[in-house]
Amino acid sequence: MKRSERLVDMTKFLMERPHTLIALPFFAKRYGAAKSSISEDLAILKHTLASNEDGILETVAGAAGGVRYIPFLGQKPAEKYLKDLAGRIQDSSRILPGGFLYLSDILGGPYDLEMIGKLIATRYAYANIEAVMTVETRGISLANAVASYLNVPAVTARKRSKVTEGATVSVNYMSSSTSRVAKMELPTRALDKDTSVLIVDDFMKGGGTLDGMRQLVKEFDCQVAGVCVLCETEYEEERKIKDYVSLVNIDQIDSEKEIVLAQPGNFLTRTNFDRF
Amino acid sequence: MKRSERLVDMTKFLMERPHTLIALPFFAKRYGAAKSSISEDLAILKHTLASNEDGILETVAGAAGGVRYIPFLGQKPAEKYLKDLAGRIQDSSRILPGGFLYLSDILGGPYDLEMIGKLIATRYAYANIEAVMTVETRGISLANAVASYLNVPAVTARKRSKVTEGATVSVNYMSSSTSRVAKMELPTRALDKDTSVLIVDDFMKGGGTLDGMRQLVKEFDCQVAGVCVLCETEYEEERKIKDYVSLVNIDQIDSEKEIVLAQPGNFLTRTNFDRF
Repeated sequence: MKRSERLVDMTKFLMERPHTLIALPFFAKRYGAAKSSISEDLAILKHTLASNEDGILETVAGAAGGVRYIPFLGQKPAEKYLKDLAGRIQDSSRILPGGFLYLSDILGGPYDLEMIGKLIATRYAYANIEAVMTVETRGISLANAVASYLNVPAVTARKRSKVTEGATVSVNYMSSSTSRVAKMELPTRALDKDTSVLIVDDFMKGGGTLDGMRQLVKEFDCQVAGVCVLCETEYEEERKIKDYVSLVNIDQIDSEKEIVLAQPGNFLTRTNFDRF
Repeated sequence: MKRSERLVDMTKFLMERPHTLIALPFFAKRYGAAKSSISEDLAILKHTLASNEDGILETVAGAAGGVRYIPFLGQKPAEKYLKDLAGRIQDSSRILPGGFLYLSDILGGPYDLEMIGKLIATRYAYANIEAVMTVETRGISLANAVASYLNVPAVTARKRSKVTEGATVSVNYMSSSTSRVAKMELPTRALDKDTSVLIVDDFMKGGGTLDGMRQLVKEFDCQVAGVCVLCETEYEEERKIKDYVSLVNIDQIDSEKEIVLAQPGNFLTRTNFDRF
């Protein structure tokens, strides 16, 4: 196979297997090419990704070595996207009664899910995440987008028992939006012991739901490797979660004046972009 | 930029924008290259994708022309994957009380979601789908995977009212699994009039839930372009949905004998793979 064809196939192959170590001999065999040629191909790939600040090709040296594609966005494209996203969230037609915002278009939009997934996968690219957890319903598309870029399973806690899940572990939590004690549960077989879990959700007010997920992770003898939300919103009391990352910070939702004020969240200061 | 770098960037660029027409002058400008060189690059890309039966690069001639990347799997990789998937579904440890199966590992697994998403996107690649619909909860990851490969929005009907959705349209439907009349609803702003909608879900018994979604699509003055499920299972009465595509057909779930019998569904005979 010619270099030009190899480069197309290799780019596609690696992009479809993020965070997966591919040994050089695998490519040498796949293309019937010398290892030295493969190394040159990979150098081109690495350079091209880096020049766009969109993706890292990581080289692992040694006998068990190879290459690994890491979805990773640079600071500039991250800032640009988050400013645009915050701008769109400020659209006052999103305001719903009770100080909520309509976000389903963003949470179901393929471009936004790609960008949000890539950004969160960038923040936790080197945090050894082994699973992404969310709670139904609106966080699911988000969790799956992140999980696809980190190439780990997504697990979904449920707010009510379903016969199609089998045995579950459940926890009680204080829902900040309804100020009621609620229950969430996860199938016992969803997580192995000692899994490193990234918790994600679409919206954080008081952090009660996120705190419920944190409890659930502990019940499975697993570790919380991070908590990340799409939007954090103003909350007067003390939050149940202090250490979190937010992509968008909604300062104000004023239904009377029809004003939403939003800006990029703490994501930009909490992410080490220094990898290119 | 050299051809080798152009090919890497172009592959990534197109893969991240499936079903999107990119004009040749756009690439010519992006890479500071002659249109004839870009055409040669695209010919290499097209050939490489086709030789793996994994993706089509479609050329659109004329003044408004360009190229479009269509995620599309060939018959052989489709058969191979579906046989493997059906085999894994036969694992008797998936059996849950009441004749249900645990499938959350598949519906949350990045590789399975990629393959299932690509397969369904293959089946409907030329059906002018404008949105993918599902109903909470387990179909959501599936719908988003399909939507990402078709590059259209995913919309999720809810089984109970949520304050965070605003005004909704609701329908009643007969749930085949519980034999009860249930309700599902979708925000009024989720779908524009005359949208062509692909309905997807994880599991079909009698088709009651799918029928509910079909009603919902009609209430929005939209069209059902197709109905596709991950698994269909045995059902003794007449199904509410007759025209559907299934990836896996589960013939039998016997909790006493601990036997699950599954095989590829009608997907393989209902898909025109003749595009390479």
